Amino acid sequence: MKKIILTLAVIALSAIVSAQETRYYNAAGLNVIGKAIPTSKDFTRIDTSAYKFNDKVIEEYACHSTGLAVLFATDSPFIKARWVTSEKNAAENMTAIAQKGLDLYIRKDGEWVFAGVGRPEMDKGPAYATHEGTIVKSMAEGRKECLLYLPLYDRLDSLYIGVAEDSYIEPIDNPFKYRIVIKGSSVTHGLAASRPGMSYSARFGRDNGFHCFNLGFSGKSKLQEEYARYLADIEDVDAFIFDAFSNPSADVVHENFDRFVDIIRQAHPETPLIFMQTERRESRNFDTWREDFEAKKQAAAEEEIRERMKSDKHLYFIPSDDFLGHDHIATSDGSHPTDLGFTYMLESIQPKILKILRKYGIR
Amino acid sequence: MKKIILTLAVIALSAIVSAQETRYYNAAGLNVIGKAIPTSKDFTRIDTSAYKFNDKVIEEYACHSTGLAVLFATDSPFIKARWVTSEKNAAENMTAIAQKGLDLYIRKDGEWVFAGVGRPEMDKGPAYATHEGTIVKSMAEGRKECLLYLPLYDRLDSLYIGVAEDSYIEPIDNPFKYRIVIKGSSVTHGLAASRPGMSYSARFGRDNGFHCFNLGFSGKSKLQEEYARYLADIEDVDAFIFDAFSNPSADVVHENFDRFVDIIRQAHPETPLIFMQTERRESRNFDTWREDFEAKKQAAAEEEIRERMKSDKHLYFIPSDDFLGHDHIATSDGSHPTDLGFTYMLESIQPKILKILRKYGIR
Repeated sequence: MKKIILTLAVIALSAIVSAQETRYYNAAGLNVIGKAIPTSKDFTRIDTSAYKFNDKVIEEYACHSTGLAVLFATDSPFIKARWVTSEKNAAENMTAIAQKGLDLYIRKDGEWVFAGVGRPEMDKGPAYATHEGTIVKSMAEGRKECLLYLPLYDRLDSLYIGVAEDSYIEPIDNPFKYRIVIKGSSVTHGLAASRPGMSYSARFGRDNGFHCFNLGFSGKSKLQEEYARYLADIEDVDAFIFDAFSNPSADVVHENFDRFVDIIRQAHPETPLIFMQTERRESRNFDTWREDFEAKKQAAAEEEIRERMKSDKHLYFIPSDDFLGHDHIATSDGSHPTDLGFTYMLESIQPKILKILRKYGIR
Repeated sequence: MKKIILTLAVIALSAIVSAQETRYYNAAGLNVIGKAIPTSKDFTRIDTSAYKFNDKVIEEYACHSTGLAVLFATDSPFIKARWVTSEKNAAENMTAIAQKGLDLYIRKDGEWVFAGVGRPEMDKGPAYATHEGTIVKSMAEGRKECLLYLPLYDRLDSLYIGVAEDSYIEPIDNPFKYRIVIKGSSVTHGLAASRPGMSYSARFGRDNGFHCFNLGFSGKSKLQEEYARYLADIEDVDAFIFDAFSNPSADVVHENFDRFVDIIRQAHPETPLIFMQTERRESRNFDTWREDFEAKKQAAAEEEIRERMKSDKHLYFIPSDDFLGHDHIATSDGSHPTDLGFTYMLESIQPKILKILRKYGIR
């Protein structure tokens, strides 16, 4: 009899503990950062009603939540999320967490430390668009300042953050300073990062306290005028960083480069424009056609930039010889840097970019 | 008229160039390495008709091609593949290339250098099981010695390798020496590696010239007797490496450890058994329950090993403090090392393991 009572008591206690109800809050009401220009939809990086690209894929990518993050504080012991993305499956060279998942960091002694991921729903079928999960649980008491990165490679139709019923959740001010625009290809888009917060753009911003705008467009970043006009419209830009030579051929580089820079320069006459050379792809290792194509493209890029640097003292060029290290293991498919690739890349570009930024008082 | 003839000539020429026919060869007729004990099926790592595990998931994993690779030489300018896997989609924390793709390395100046991947078919629907693709093309003339890693996290029902019709393809001898068994969890299984050849087991073998057998079983590696009996049956083992403490609780470690080692020791009385401590998971950063669970498990593991080391001088223990580096960014989900995580892990374990192996004349 005693045993039964004890068992009942244990069951009742677990019921109380597990009965801590979750209340969900619309993340749009918190502080969403990462948009270079405000958009009408909550979680899209570019407003496609205001900017036209004449390319369905580019317009789809413009609606991705790439580079966006939500800032909030809570004293909840757990953080959950319910969110809706497209039904698209991850491509073969990326994880679904990077594509359509969430990636949480909590401030600890001034540093943003990884806390957990929001795992997209895969068990109900890969094309399932409605996701729900616990990002972190069993946290110690007290206020937590949170930075939640949104899907890198998908649109985000809605996001609700769940905390304990008796806990608060509130937006916090954006601690990231300066406005740094990073325009690029799939490398910038973060295709083979393992999580949304692991793109080089997110890491560069998080580690240096910069407010970065990720304008990576996978396979579609060919120095088009439409991008330049969008970049020209961004206000108060402290620096532009370009991964501009991964997608175009040598001919397209020659054809588009000057016009692209002209349009940006009309609006931002003295803002530093930092052009990174495209990485030396691992797909060149044995493919002689690729070797030739890439070598010509890199030569065209360097030629255009070196020429233009003669008349533009705020233009910079970063060579790419060490972007992927030297061990031939830093990509998921020969082209796309993994977290290891981005580590090598940041080791190379970060000191060079910071040195340039310091000349403009950005530190 | 001249233009038309020229155009026709160009078309005819491209037809000849592109008409280089592909002939496909069954990869089972080449040199398949990575099986600790021969199996009746071509590409499964453990024969489930000979070894029973009383667990459907373990038996499914036993049929994975994890750690297997095909060795061959060819003078073809391109290498293609047709292969069949299960219809399972990649989990949210892995890429489909790692799960069900192929990963090719070609020997260059004595080193295995990344050449290309076989991308699983995703466009026809994620659950498509029949894949076909070009792994590398436009190669220079000459003989290429090839090492093709098979899917890490799926079964492989068939694999055909395509080369130019007038080229040869032939098996080559296994250049990897010694027989090193690596038994472990999802970490060993290579779950969050970006490609099949990027698991720490594959990298350790490739970089050091060792023939490694990957016996990682995601979430199912709890020092069970069934595994120990399989390990006991492997012949001519030069060393066992264990990632044995990632899946069991502290209680299960205490319950199973001695019996597990006893069974192996009966068959391999003096073979080095190298036990790695389980990594310090990133999911501990803020989760107090996880912190407690993991700390207890690590303590149990160290206690059992230290005790047993008193009477077994061929037992070794490798602490794990630096397996994931110190920047909290080395996992795809808080638990599973990415390529960056495996880089950190190898930087830690490789010198320690090599030092132990040298004592046994293995170098």
